[in-house]
Amino acid sequence: MASDFRLKEQLPNLTNEIVRTYSEVGTINHLGHCPLPNYEMVVSSLDDLREIIFPGYRRREGLHIGNITYHVGDLIDGLHDRLTTQIARALRHEDRVRPDDEQAMKERSGGSDQSSSRDRVDSCGREEDTDYDAKGQAITIEFLKRIPQIRRQLALDVRAAYDGDPACHSLDEVIFCYPGLEAITVFRIAHELRNLNVPLIPRMMSEYAHHRTGIDINPGATIGERFFIDHGTGVVIGETCEIGERVKIYQGVTLGALSFPTDGAGNLLRGHKRHPTIGDRVVIYANATVLGGKTVVGHDSVIGSSVWLTESVDPHTTVLLEKPKLRLRSDQPDEWKPEMNYQI
Amino acid sequence: MASDFRLKEQLPNLTNEIVRTYSEVGTINHLGHCPLPNYEMVVSSLDDLREIIFPGYRRREGLHIGNITYHVGDLIDGLHDRLTTQIARALRHEDRVRPDDEQAMKERSGGSDQSSSRDRVDSCGREEDTDYDAKGQAITIEFLKRIPQIRRQLALDVRAAYDGDPACHSLDEVIFCYPGLEAITVFRIAHELRNLNVPLIPRMMSEYAHHRTGIDINPGATIGERFFIDHGTGVVIGETCEIGERVKIYQGVTLGALSFPTDGAGNLLRGHKRHPTIGDRVVIYANATVLGGKTVVGHDSVIGSSVWLTESVDPHTTVLLEKPKLRLRSDQPDEWKPEMNYQI
Amino acid sequence: MASDFRLKEQLPNLTNEIVRTYSEVGTINHLGHCPLPNYEMVVSSLDDLREIIFPGYRRREGLHIGNITYHVGDLIDGLHDRLTTQIARALRHEDRVRPDDEQAMKERSGGSDQSSSRDRVDSCGREEDTDYDAKGQAITIEFLKRIPQIRRQLALDVRAAYDGDPACHSLDEVIFCYPGLEAITVFRIAHELRNLNVPLIPRMMSEYAHHRTGIDINPGATIGERFFIDHGTGVVIGETCEIGERVKIYQGVTLGALSFPTDGAGNLLRGHKRHPTIGDRVVIYANATVLGGKTVVGHDSVIGSSVWLTESVDPHTTVLLEKPKLRLRSDQPDEWKPEMNYQI
Repeated sequence: MASDFRLKEQLPNLTNEIVRTYSEVGTINHLGHCPLPNYEMVVSSLDDLREIIFPGYRRREGLHIGNITYHVGDLIDGLHDRLTTQIARALRHEDRVRPDDEQAMKERSGGSDQSSSRDRVDSCGREEDTDYDAKGQAITIEFLKRIPQIRRQLALDVRAAYDGDPACHSLDEVIFCYPGLEAITVFRIAHELRNLNVPLIPRMMSEYAHHRTGIDINPGATIGERFFIDHGTGVVIGETCEIGERVKIYQGVTLGALSFPTDGAGNLLRGHKRHPTIGDRVVIYANATVLGGKTVVGHDSVIGSSVWLTESVDPHTTVLLEKPKLRLRSDQPDEWKPEMNYQI
Repeated sequence: MASDFRLKEQLPNLTNEIVRTYSEVGTINHLGHCPLPNYEMVVSSLDDLREIIFPGYRRREGLHIGNITYHVGDLIDGLHDRLTTQIARALRHEDRVRPDDEQAMKERSGGSDQSSSRDRVDSCGREEDTDYDAKGQAITIEFLKRIPQIRRQLALDVRAAYDGDPACHSLDEVIFCYPGLEAITVFRIAHELRNLNVPLIPRMMSEYAHHRTGIDINPGATIGERFFIDHGTGVVIGETCEIGERVKIYQGVTLGALSFPTDGAGNLLRGHKRHPTIGDRVVIYANATVLGGKTVVGHDSVIGSSVWLTESVDPHTTVLLEKPKLRLRSDQPDEWKPEMNYQI
Repeated sequence: MASDFRLKEQLPNLTNEIVRTYSEVGTINHLGHCPLPNYEMVVSSLDDLREIIFPGYRRREGLHIGNITYHVGDLIDGLHDRLTTQIARALRHEDRVRPDDEQAMKERSGGSDQSSSRDRVDSCGREEDTDYDAKGQAITIEFLKRIPQIRRQLALDVRAAYDGDPACHSLDEVIFCYPGLEAITVFRIAHELRNLNVPLIPRMMSEYAHHRTGIDINPGATIGERFFIDHGTGVVIGETCEIGERVKIYQGVTLGALSFPTDGAGNLLRGHKRHPTIGDRVVIYANATVLGGKTVVGHDSVIGSSVWLTESVDPHTTVLLEKPKLRLRSDQPDEWKPEMNYQI
């Protein structure tokens, strides 16, 4: 490449223009603060957790009953250190951002961000009232103790996938291939961390699973045993959903909110129940949409493909879309001639 | 990080608790068995196959007619060894799991998994009746011989994408950018391996493509020439679909099953035709859903966006959704006032 | 592995069979031409741009006001060189393919590809009329100058996400986790490059974002300030869409084309307006589909979930789907008994 070096001399000025915006538009950079949770560390923790939960499938080969304890023990030791650090970071960050969240954001949106970020550097270096590392370690150990229980749940989820999909030939195929299993695995992990009041990290995990599978399950949802999502691309399960046992969901299903109440100042109210409740043994077919915090789908119901549902249905109910109207094509391909309301 | 070492002393016990579950919940670990197909090796084989099929686009630069044979010859040599190993593993695993699949799973669900997994180690080390390596090699060579034919098919698929999308500016753009081409490339590869009776690996491949593109095509489907999927996120094409030539499909389209017959014991029947048949030159627009093994969409038909179809349609038919009802918003934003059934 | 070496002796012949298809099916290989833009380089440029726009979140830790200039200056310097090279490649390739695109493709589809590719080698080595490197550098510097403006836009997009999602707890969560932000970030970058008449690379970028997020925004679209896509999997925004300010879009929404006019010879007309126009403050809920270049959704309108819309609506209009028909399940699970048109 023969680039013009006189043109390249513009780069320092250009860099300064960009750096200037870090003060001017200070809401989207993170400078001089205590470190945030590290995305790569969170992802590698998830990867290690999957190796512990499903050993012998993806990473290490040649595991047997004689060496598995060394392998798992080593992974647990590394996980302990990594999760302790990351959870401590998330807790410290939360305490610094949360108390006056709206206020803080208004300040950060203002022009004086440079000085305010210097204050934060100081406060992070100062003696802190809370021992975040100790808190992070205590949560980490409590979380690691729950892995056996998570494994038991996931074994039932794997079985539910095999039992629910006639295209599936073995349990191994579920563990190797099924994006629905990947999503529910990350959900069950992230949900436990959220139950332990870990901020931010559960959402980083669920968005990693969303990126990999197209399935977006908020860690706040409650999901019963033997849950199966088939294909799964486009599935959205909102923060306050409650889902019973043996529920089966197909690609493109949204369990979402109907509308968002606001406070007097027009700000969204956060945290209240705004997503549906799904009873035991419900099946929801592809691209159906179920909306609203008061919507309850009774147990043993079936929601048909592409249905749009905003009110409750009784147990054992089937909701189906009307058959579409059919029109025959006219000779001019760009013109539609409505023929009849032929029910196909 | 200043973690408390007394707390860390809990980790060995915690590890033992987890390891104990590998016997107790033995269905989701793979210990002491013969190795499973390796996911990374399957993915890198796909990567090499794409480099062979579309040389000069993604990986190696500076290829020309004078050096291409060395490059491809080297890739083929490596692929031969890798695929032989992985296919042999898949065949051996299949023979060990398949014959008494249900029975095996019941045993693995039971408590005596430790001893049963030791049995399997033995049986893997023992002299085997079948020479899986030889079988793997024979299949690999037969598969590699089919690459020229796969290239010819894919050249037509590339052309179909250019011809079918007015936003597309060149064939190069299709090869570089189109997720639909990535999905159909992996499908045509995985489909050939499935035709050669390779277990598990074709599904690992199709789920890798699903992960990368949001397009889920089961390797068992039959798809004619000049197939084009535009955008593609959320597309699902089931195991027993039959698709003709010059078919065009948009994002979110499901070609799925209507219901799953079960045997007397309530187990799903696997393998029978349960997905639709799509004729030549059919176009299926975004988010349409076509379901059922007896559903035939006749040639030259058009299925409109968001249509839900569960019965056959004649050739040259167009199926469109009814226009939606419209309601005007009242002054109170959270209340809907139905005004009229105004056909927009 | 004990493979049979006699069988392996077939590999050279097999390789030759494949290499032969590079002449026979010459449209899908790129041999002996000037190099195409390199996909990995394009992706790493995007990665560096995100580090410059949102410093402190993903990659480098410990950034503060005292070292940020070095970090950004170094990234800008590398980006300058890399983008100059890649844009020069894209421009040169465009000039060689474009003028007689259809003609070129016909030649490449024909059998004489070997000689034509040799011609191209020559023409690439020859003195060229255009100094592509200089052109690439000029565009790169103009693009880098626009980064401060892109940052200002993205800060508003981040704020719009926080304001629009009650499940969101902080601006940091948006930057860390939201796929909608990732997609709009890549869009705003790719859109500027397209405005600077860079071929191919903007589409490579937008498909990278599509792969990572399931959100497919063509770089040609026009999108106003404070744009928010929630969840996002399956969203498609076409090349000629025009979107106003403060628009909010949910997963599965398609803003697409209705039909594709062709010229006399049956070839698609490319470049004309064929995607909808969306007014300010419009909200479009999950899985809605809005089609057609003449379709205008007036400002402050709401398009309900799963609606299919092909005609314009006035400002302040709400379009909702009809409530679905409900049928009770009969005793035989595979038979549907239509009970009544009960409006749930």
